[in-house]
Amino acid sequence: MNPSPSPWVRCVALPPPSLKNNTADTDRLLAALKKELAAETIDVDLDLLKQLPAVLRKAGYRIRCTVFRDRHRWVLTGIDTPEAPRPAAGIAVDLGTTRVALRLIDLASCRVTGEHAFDNPQIAIGSDVLARIHHADSPGGLKELNDLIIGGLNTAVGEICRTAGIEPYDICAVSVAGNTAMTHLFLGLEPRWIIREPYIPVVNRPGVLKAADLGLQVSPFARVLVFPNIGSYFGGDLIAGILFSGLHRRQAPALLVDVGTNAEVVLGNRDWLVGCAGAAGPALEGGVTRMGMLAGPGVIDRVAIDPAGRGFDIHTLEERPPIGICGSGVIDLAAQLFLAGMIDIRGKLVAAACSERLRVVEGLRQLVVVPAGQSGTGKDLTISQADLDSLIRSKAAMYTILETIAMTVGLNLDELDTFYVAGTFGCFINPRSAIVIGMLPDLPLERYVPIGNSSLQGAALALTSENAVDEIDRIRDRITYLELNVNQDFMNRFSAAKFLPHTDTGRFPSVLTS
Amino acid sequence: MNPSPSPWVRCVALPPPSLKNNTADTDRLLAALKKELAAETIDVDLDLLKQLPAVLRKAGYRIRCTVFRDRHRWVLTGIDTPEAPRPAAGIAVDLGTTRVALRLIDLASCRVTGEHAFDNPQIAIGSDVLARIHHADSPGGLKELNDLIIGGLNTAVGEICRTAGIEPYDICAVSVAGNTAMTHLFLGLEPRWIIREPYIPVVNRPGVLKAADLGLQVSPFARVLVFPNIGSYFGGDLIAGILFSGLHRRQAPALLVDVGTNAEVVLGNRDWLVGCAGAAGPALEGGVTRMGMLAGPGVIDRVAIDPAGRGFDIHTLEERPPIGICGSGVIDLAAQLFLAGMIDIRGKLVAAACSERLRVVEGLRQLVVVPAGQSGTGKDLTISQADLDSLIRSKAAMYTILETIAMTVGLNLDELDTFYVAGTFGCFINPRSAIVIGMLPDLPLERYVPIGNSSLQGAALALTSENAVDEIDRIRDRITYLELNVNQDFMNRFSAAKFLPHTDTGRFPSVLTS
Repeated sequence: MNPSPSPWVRCVALPPPSLKNNTADTDRLLAALKKELAAETIDVDLDLLKQLPAVLRKAGYRIRCTVFRDRHRWVLTGIDTPEAPRPAAGIAVDLGTTRVALRLIDLASCRVTGEHAFDNPQIAIGSDVLARIHHADSPGGLKELNDLIIGGLNTAVGEICRTAGIEPYDICAVSVAGNTAMTHLFLGLEPRWIIREPYIPVVNRPGVLKAADLGLQVSPFARVLVFPNIGSYFGGDLIAGILFSGLHRRQAPALLVDVGTNAEVVLGNRDWLVGCAGAAGPALEGGVTRMGMLAGPGVIDRVAIDPAGRGFDIHTLEERPPIGICGSGVIDLAAQLFLAGMIDIRGKLVAAACSERLRVVEGLRQLVVVPAGQSGTGKDLTISQADLDSLIRSKAAMYTILETIAMTVGLNLDELDTFYVAGTFGCFINPRSAIVIGMLPDLPLERYVPIGNSSLQGAALALTSENAVDEIDRIRDRITYLELNVNQDFMNRFSAAKFLPHTDTGRFPSVLTS
Repeated sequence: MNPSPSPWVRCVALPPPSLKNNTADTDRLLAALKKELAAETIDVDLDLLKQLPAVLRKAGYRIRCTVFRDRHRWVLTGIDTPEAPRPAAGIAVDLGTTRVALRLIDLASCRVTGEHAFDNPQIAIGSDVLARIHHADSPGGLKELNDLIIGGLNTAVGEICRTAGIEPYDICAVSVAGNTAMTHLFLGLEPRWIIREPYIPVVNRPGVLKAADLGLQVSPFARVLVFPNIGSYFGGDLIAGILFSGLHRRQAPALLVDVGTNAEVVLGNRDWLVGCAGAAGPALEGGVTRMGMLAGPGVIDRVAIDPAGRGFDIHTLEERPPIGICGSGVIDLAAQLFLAGMIDIRGKLVAAACSERLRVVEGLRQLVVVPAGQSGTGKDLTISQADLDSLIRSKAAMYTILETIAMTVGLNLDELDTFYVAGTFGCFINPRSAIVIGMLPDLPLERYVPIGNSSLQGAALALTSENAVDEIDRIRDRITYLELNVNQDFMNRFSAAKFLPHTDTGRFPSVLTS
């Protein structure tokens, strides 16, 4: 009876009413649907019941149902005639602090039918989570932040639907993965206590909510699966990432790292999962260097330096004249500078090697990466010693976090079978460069697997897999969250990691032979 | 921890947050509450979560919760500090076609704190269910009917709260029992198919709904338990009546009859329940006789006739000058006329016995019950032969329904241990008179138990008993609904019952000796 590959679109045939079988419309439908879904409980909104008598009779008691699931509970999210029904679609959302990405999925075929992304409009209030949380404390501040993200999403939903030729009304399932603070702002929940010791979110398991209660302009019967968080600093975006990577189903231990403002790390296998999050510094997001920026046309994403002549081979996105550099470009640049001897093992610019590329502006050393004549801005693109110092701190923090989590479970980093790198960072980064500067461990390159926007991918998976909701729960309940104690041991490891590639060069055999 | 006798008001103490116990507010509360309630699932509205951080911290992690239940699912309906919390109240509603009755209950003490009743404002559309169902088919008709009853309820809730000195916002639980059509109009569900073969309601088990979704102006977190119905002609009001009577918990077979426009009958014990409903005619509601009316001041409710002198001893409600007669008065009158020989065994007025009280107006015989000089209207109050004929048909229908349902399960009516008589009818009727005219079986009078507005009582019980919701389900699922086949056998029994007290006078030994 269900030719669709989707768990959420079901066609059921009901026995038509008769004097011998005169149960109510709802009971008739739910009896058949419970059998079809092997479900004990199916919720139906009152307003959907209002449509039922007419649709049942029009459809001749064969009816197409869209459903959704929340653990043991199913929800009926729509009914239609099985002949030429309206589309049934879902929207997966990666609720990023900076960027929000949406993916449209046709629920009947489980195919992706659209993508859309937009800058989080809350940036107008503050570019980082902290500023927004403080703003939420001011009168009306929380509502303002909530309105911004809900408004942004509604506009984006309208956009993605228009492009796909469907109506927002056709969206009957939504999944949302974001960090804990973003999830709170999306739900309109007070984020105040997230950033105050002992760091308490309002909710860890928002579960499945009514889209209408959230102000989302989709089907009034649509449900929204909001990914759970472990705590204030380990959000649903990472749970979605784990779900997508499949790390929690593998026998061999693997590691997943998502680098944004925070480095979020999960290590484990099908039997255990350990997670932690730590500040890796903004350098990797391109927030620090004066020429740093997010990936976009004209942004330097790859750099190669000829070790002999020290000529720079610059690659930009869309091969446009260079206007800045993104995180992956900075890592490439630092690795190449190091290999060419233009920075030393402490990351300091070596005057002799840099020669005419070196400038000193207001007592601060700078290296000209792209001279004004070749840049897209008409000015020199430079990287300063401060930028490089910041990068070193970030890469050292990153490596120390990885080392610490591995130590905690008694693993060496080289025992990792797979190393998933999530995020834009994961897509653009050259793992070889990250190894050269000692940011990532010296594993064979094939163990590095970039998984892109794994938060969006995980959110999308929840819209195509009936069991995702159980998996999400199992992942969440199995993770041991490791509070990173920035104690003396940690600081010692951090100091050792502040060299290129590391004080203990034996850990980076491949770099020594570069 | 729960000194309150109420299942719905609970005080819980939570472990305060610390770095070692930094789970989310919601998870912290629900863990404690699940333990307190032995509940697996507790739903919380998003808007209630929004209040949680502030209330928890203000209350010092000791919190008073109001909860409600829907089968396996609990719902959190309110939170407050345990010191001087706002009142937590519930409202039970008997949703009558003609009259709507409300009872206010303090949920902490389970005490009744107010009562209120009002005429169903849908009467403006039509006095009976049929007229309203037809009106619901017209454009906007259903919404109009729904608005009328919801508006009426909101006004009544405001009234009952004002009298009790609380706010509608303090109402966090509502229970509603009504017949199937009234329940549909209350829910805004299309009643069209209820009256059309094969008589299909939209829903049999509405379950527990959000008050806000129904437009009820109470706490936005309040839940509404809507009593289930068995089918189009056996409604939640009767389920509530069974719940209140306790018939379903007794060993000896008992019968419950609720007489309105329909006679609704349930027969059974703790092991089995059989229900049926049939048209008993409007005579018993006082809708037929020209002087008939609903109970109210000046309405004749009891009549005694001196068999020798044939003098009438009339009693009216509030002892005001008589202005009309209600159902119970008509039955008293008919019984007394029969015993005084003023009507014969076919219910026909006996001219010789009635003497000067008999009139013939336009060829129709009438009996003057109260002469103009003594009436409150300044006119004669009369009962016509047509009125009496109608009463005979009603009483015969009633007896035939009782006989049929008893026969179906192989019982004699005199085997009934208890005979519950519900409704206004049950309160005012003199069972002796009903036996004399052969409307009710000739049981010892002590077996007749008037239970008043058992629908309201049952609805109230659902607000004070944690297990009522399970009992309601069990009652509903255990009832075998008997479709009354008006076949030749039924018609034969009906004809036999059209005599006073019955063709088979052996069934009414006590009347023969009167």
